[in-house]
Amino acid sequence: MKKIYIVGLGPGGDIFMTGQARQAIADSSVVVGYDLYVQLIADLPEMAGKTVASTPMKQEVARCEAALSYALEGRTVSMVCSGDSGVYGMAGIVMEVAQGHPEVEIEVVPGITAACSGAAVLGAPLTHDFAVISLSDLLTPWEKIEKRLRLAADADFVICLYNPSSKKRKDYLARACAEILPFRDGATPCGWVKNIGRDGQESRVLTLSELAQEQVDMFTTVFIGNSQTKVVNGRLCTPRGYRV
Amino acid sequence: MKKIYIVGLGPGGDIFMTGQARQAIADSSVVVGYDLYVQLIADLPEMAGKTVASTPMKQEVARCEAALSYALEGRTVSMVCSGDSGVYGMAGIVMEVAQGHPEVEIEVVPGITAACSGAAVLGAPLTHDFAVISLSDLLTPWEKIEKRLRLAADADFVICLYNPSSKKRKDYLARACAEILPFRDGATPCGWVKNIGRDGQESRVLTLSELAQEQVDMFTTVFIGNSQTKVVNGRLCTPRGYRV
Repeated sequence: MKKIYIVGLGPGGDIFMTGQARQAIADSSVVVGYDLYVQLIADLPEMAGKTVASTPMKQEVARCEAALSYALEGRTVSMVCSGDSGVYGMAGIVMEVAQGHPEVEIEVVPGITAACSGAAVLGAPLTHDFAVISLSDLLTPWEKIEKRLRLAADADFVICLYNPSSKKRKDYLARACAEILPFRDGATPCGWVKNIGRDGQESRVLTLSELAQEQVDMFTTVFIGNSQTKVVNGRLCTPRGYRV
Repeated sequence: MKKIYIVGLGPGGDIFMTGQARQAIADSSVVVGYDLYVQLIADLPEMAGKTVASTPMKQEVARCEAALSYALEGRTVSMVCSGDSGVYGMAGIVMEVAQGHPEVEIEVVPGITAACSGAAVLGAPLTHDFAVISLSDLLTPWEKIEKRLRLAADADFVICLYNPSSKKRKDYLARACAEILPFRDGATPCGWVKNIGRDGQESRVLTLSELAQEQVDMFTTVFIGNSQTKVVNGRLCTPRGYRV
């Protein structure tokens, strides 16, 4: 059987992996992934004896082609990703690269995405409708990102921002907050979490006005509350509407 | 120590649980939850010897008060929820109920939410920005839900619908599609998954026009593609924008 698992590892160490993810790796003879993610799981018992093909960042298509050629040789492959394999993950691109080979079975194994793992650190910001938006304009025009920010703010979604900053995009979080502030009170509770589930995890609860001034890095996930979000014992809480 | 874990179990059987979730249950002496979810994990080795306090549906506040009183007695409690404990889950309401007792430590343990587990079944619909909207108007006015649907459609978010139907709300999915159709082609690829990760799992890929005619139940999660979503070998794929 020709098979590729696309495996979400969750945010950090192996305690965030599901049983299904560990089983997929155990069933594979090859593990393909970005160097850092492969290192995170190098000590798992399921990794013993695997062929490991790690590739640098920004080589996404090459990584998928490597996975596909192992699968076409008849080997079972796990392509590993951090977080969920389907949320800005590799699942889509593997499907596109393997499109001409419908005989290769592709199984997507979900993992805990940063929206969920980061929310858990901050309390309960996502207990009502929410939008997830990446601020990376590498593959999406900034105008489209701005429009999504404005409409999500107008819709009163809790907003979760992925890739809020990078060396070349230091002011993007401030620009995103500037799109949201016309629709939402500057005192709206917000938060960020850095290095979720990894060494050096940090987090902060702050207001939207403060967030607009904050410097965060590319390993950070940002949460912007809706009109009902409040701070309960120092943590974010978006009420669902039960009478407490 | 007075502690409540709020534990997301993922969609179904224990293969979707993380190591962190199993460890939280192992660390607890009491497990509190809705009957069905407690039954799903009854055979886990970590459940041996636990006090189990299961409560019927729609008793959410009573369930949190039960968890709080066990914690105040000094017992470590796991409140279990299906999916993620923070996405329309119990994390927020536990925080509100326990607000007057800051000495009770509350730890949110994330799980795989239906947006992620359902997306994995259908392929890769969520590889770009997305919005998660519940169609339940039990706790949210329908006008607010309609506005969110319209703005999410205008923003070209992939849209994931929770609680798309119930006995009393048979036409809600059709009404939701009617809000979205002015902004999005009737041929837009969509999909639904029922009983994710459980016995009787079913799924279908269909167009937005077909979805507007479809009858689904309350155990179903619905996905509506964005303007770029396509069908690849029978499954949903939202391209991220890499040149393949």
